[in-house]
Amino acid sequence: MKKYTTLILVGIILLLSAVLVGVLTFMKNQPTQERAFQPLVEVKPMEPDSSIWGQNFPNQYSTLLKTKTNNVDTTYGGSSQFSWLERDPRQLILFAGYPFSKDYNDDRGHANALDDVRATKRLNLNPDDPKHTPGTCYSCKSSNNPALWDEMGMEQFDKLSFAELGEHIQQPIGCANCHEAETMRLIVTNPALEEALQAQGKDWTTFTRQEMRTVVCANCHVEYYFKGDGKYLTFPWAKGTEIHQIISYYEESGFKDWEYPDAKTPMLKAQHPEYEFFTADSTHYKAGVSCADCHMPYVSDGAAKYSTHDVHSPLLNPEQACGQCHTDSEYVVRRVNVIQEQVAATKEATENAIIDAITAIKAAAANANADAALLDQARNLHRKAQFMWDFVSAENSTGFHNPEYALKILAESTDLARQAQMLAAQSVNDMSLLTTGVYEQMDPKPLPPE
Amino acid sequence: MKKYTTLILVGIILLLSAVLVGVLTFMKNQPTQERAFQPLVEVKPMEPDSSIWGQNFPNQYSTLLKTKTNNVDTTYGGSSQFSWLERDPRQLILFAGYPFSKDYNDDRGHANALDDVRATKRLNLNPDDPKHTPGTCYSCKSSNNPALWDEMGMEQFDKLSFAELGEHIQQPIGCANCHEAETMRLIVTNPALEEALQAQGKDWTTFTRQEMRTVVCANCHVEYYFKGDGKYLTFPWAKGTEIHQIISYYEESGFKDWEYPDAKTPMLKAQHPEYEFFTADSTHYKAGVSCADCHMPYVSDGAAKYSTHDVHSPLLNPEQACGQCHTDSEYVVRRVNVIQEQVAATKEATENAIIDAITAIKAAAANANADAALLDQARNLHRKAQFMWDFVSAENSTGFHNPEYALKILAESTDLARQAQMLAAQSVNDMSLLTTGVYEQMDPKPLPPE
Repeated sequence: MKKYTTLILVGIILLLSAVLVGVLTFMKNQPTQERAFQPLVEVKPMEPDSSIWGQNFPNQYSTLLKTKTNNVDTTYGGSSQFSWLERDPRQLILFAGYPFSKDYNDDRGHANALDDVRATKRLNLNPDDPKHTPGTCYSCKSSNNPALWDEMGMEQFDKLSFAELGEHIQQPIGCANCHEAETMRLIVTNPALEEALQAQGKDWTTFTRQEMRTVVCANCHVEYYFKGDGKYLTFPWAKGTEIHQIISYYEESGFKDWEYPDAKTPMLKAQHPEYEFFTADSTHYKAGVSCADCHMPYVSDGAAKYSTHDVHSPLLNPEQACGQCHTDSEYVVRRVNVIQEQVAATKEATENAIIDAITAIKAAAANANADAALLDQARNLHRKAQFMWDFVSAENSTGFHNPEYALKILAESTDLARQAQMLAAQSVNDMSLLTTGVYEQMDPKPLPPE
Repeated sequence: MKKYTTLILVGIILLLSAVLVGVLTFMKNQPTQERAFQPLVEVKPMEPDSSIWGQNFPNQYSTLLKTKTNNVDTTYGGSSQFSWLERDPRQLILFAGYPFSKDYNDDRGHANALDDVRATKRLNLNPDDPKHTPGTCYSCKSSNNPALWDEMGMEQFDKLSFAELGEHIQQPIGCANCHEAETMRLIVTNPALEEALQAQGKDWTTFTRQEMRTVVCANCHVEYYFKGDGKYLTFPWAKGTEIHQIISYYEESGFKDWEYPDAKTPMLKAQHPEYEFFTADSTHYKAGVSCADCHMPYVSDGAAKYSTHDVHSPLLNPEQACGQCHTDSEYVVRRVNVIQEQVAATKEATENAIIDAITAIKAAAANANADAALLDQARNLHRKAQFMWDFVSAENSTGFHNPEYALKILAESTDLARQAQMLAAQSVNDMSLLTTGVYEQMDPKPLPPE
């Protein structure tokens, strides 16, 4: 028996050894927590200074710096500061009475965000003026924000005046806006985005990395408004992010950005709703493509492969941006141009219809005998039509992020603008308000601001 | 020396022999003029009977026969004969006064073309009625046509009444409509297509085979009209095939398909302009895709690979139709559905705007004091708006063949319809004509015809 026992024991020992070797081999093949490099410096949580992160991530940082100077234009957009008001003076009329009619330049790269918001003529730095610019306007401009939101909370951040808050802000958009320093994972840093997702029952910490490569852009590239006297940054997403859901939200809240002069329409200014626009069943989104796939494609520098942080129009580097999926980037660029041409032409026709409506509503509002109910209906359709147009116009892709959606929205906007015009004419029983093509007949045409 | 000479000669002989063997081997590897098969039967030029061609091409012929029974529907179209008038009773109003308001069914497969044109309630077989159906209506329905056009010429073909010409016609659409019997190459058989291409300075005999895999579909799938008293089949392409060029052509010619009852608008009915629509910078066309690539994809039966002639919606066989280029056909089908949903919704909004315009123009036309010039302007915009809508609506893809183009056209159509309504109201100085949403308020709604 003893002999058998010894044999059994030896057997067990051999078996255990084999299992142990197997487990060790398995563990050895698993990815370790550490990446291939050891960090050169420790980066503290929410570190505002991107140059410190840059010591560990020189490729990402050096490409981020390129956004300071990547001011190249495409046919319809790009990264220079051309004036929309000069390019399309219809917008002077559409934004009359609102700061965007004073100064409306196209956006430059991320590294210029802070300089550019401080230089815009839209600012009102007089804290005694109830319409002074709030601190909220810094929400998308600086990598100081995550630490400031953490320290003072967003409510306090938004309550400060632009001038006051500005003393705490030195950095443009940077690493801390999208990354967690300890792990480098992508995170939602803007409390308004977290709240807007929560309002829809969504928890971003459950999202995949590929989802986060779109969602982090929604820290800023969204429609938002300043809620209440505290100018609390709020995304109008409680009913969803589709344009009709957003309009329905604004209708219930009764919010207005400004009142259109003379017409007295309670207006909404669309911001830059790239996220809502792209995720509304666009072909690229539905195919699983993220913002970063096209705007921050993987590039090589020697042996290093990394996601470039030189964010700009993919039309400027189509081989890298589109070539990950499309074999013929020359074809792709031509295709984008066709789409943008169609959207741009339709957008101008919509603008003409809205200007006709504005002209009619202004005339009706000047008439003391106007039917108030009809005139208010006209204003409501003007409000909706212009927001829909602006949703497409302010979105930075001339429709390309979701071409069919853009054109469907513009078709509806044009219809509503014409109906607004008709209601205005009815409200004062004045056929002359049905004149169309008012903008083309304007002589002289409006001049861009000094 | 003699020894050397002998050696040199032997060398030359060996070299020449080697070259000869090489040349013969090369020639043996070249494709021969004959295909892999010898024809079983001789097919005479323009043979109308496809079953004779079918003995040489059993796969192509047996799949062509399937178009007799492939009556499967998709969400928005397909191959059954559902009634558009029942599905969308707005079209009863839009086509009032025209035979399409009596009977407007969706198309079935090619093999049913002859039966279906003979069964439609749109026919008027009374040769004494100046509005009797002309022989021209057979132009796209039969493989007898090429031989008949060759024998009697298109002018005579079109001049005969539908009943008279019908005696010469027994075959539905078949091989002779697209193929040359001697060579099986794709050819333009419809003289109207040849003339329309010539008017643009194009010679189809210079086109590539891939171009012909789209152009032969234009033998029928186009916008056309019956010119003059001889009802001469004419494509309105002399200025080009873009919709504004076609409208401009019709404006110059002053042609009308019918006059809208009471409104007295000179109307245009769009036919099935798939060719013009698809080739207007659509993404698939610009990528080099032909009609046949999606509607007649290559399929396998045992060792035979051939282009299926069972033409129908690619949504019914996406793996074969889309899978030649797209790896994820489930995604592709979802994508098509999203686009068609957007186009269908926008199309209905456009219809509502046109019905509002029609209602206003009818009321204005009933007023003897109407300003004739304004009312004619209103009619002209109604004519254009409805043709643009119809160009999208009658085109058999619910916009998918060119989504952005469809939506751009619908946006413009809606704008023109609203402007037509405003002009009608101005012509009689009657604010009540500005009522919108007339169709939704109709109670009872129009009923489909018996």
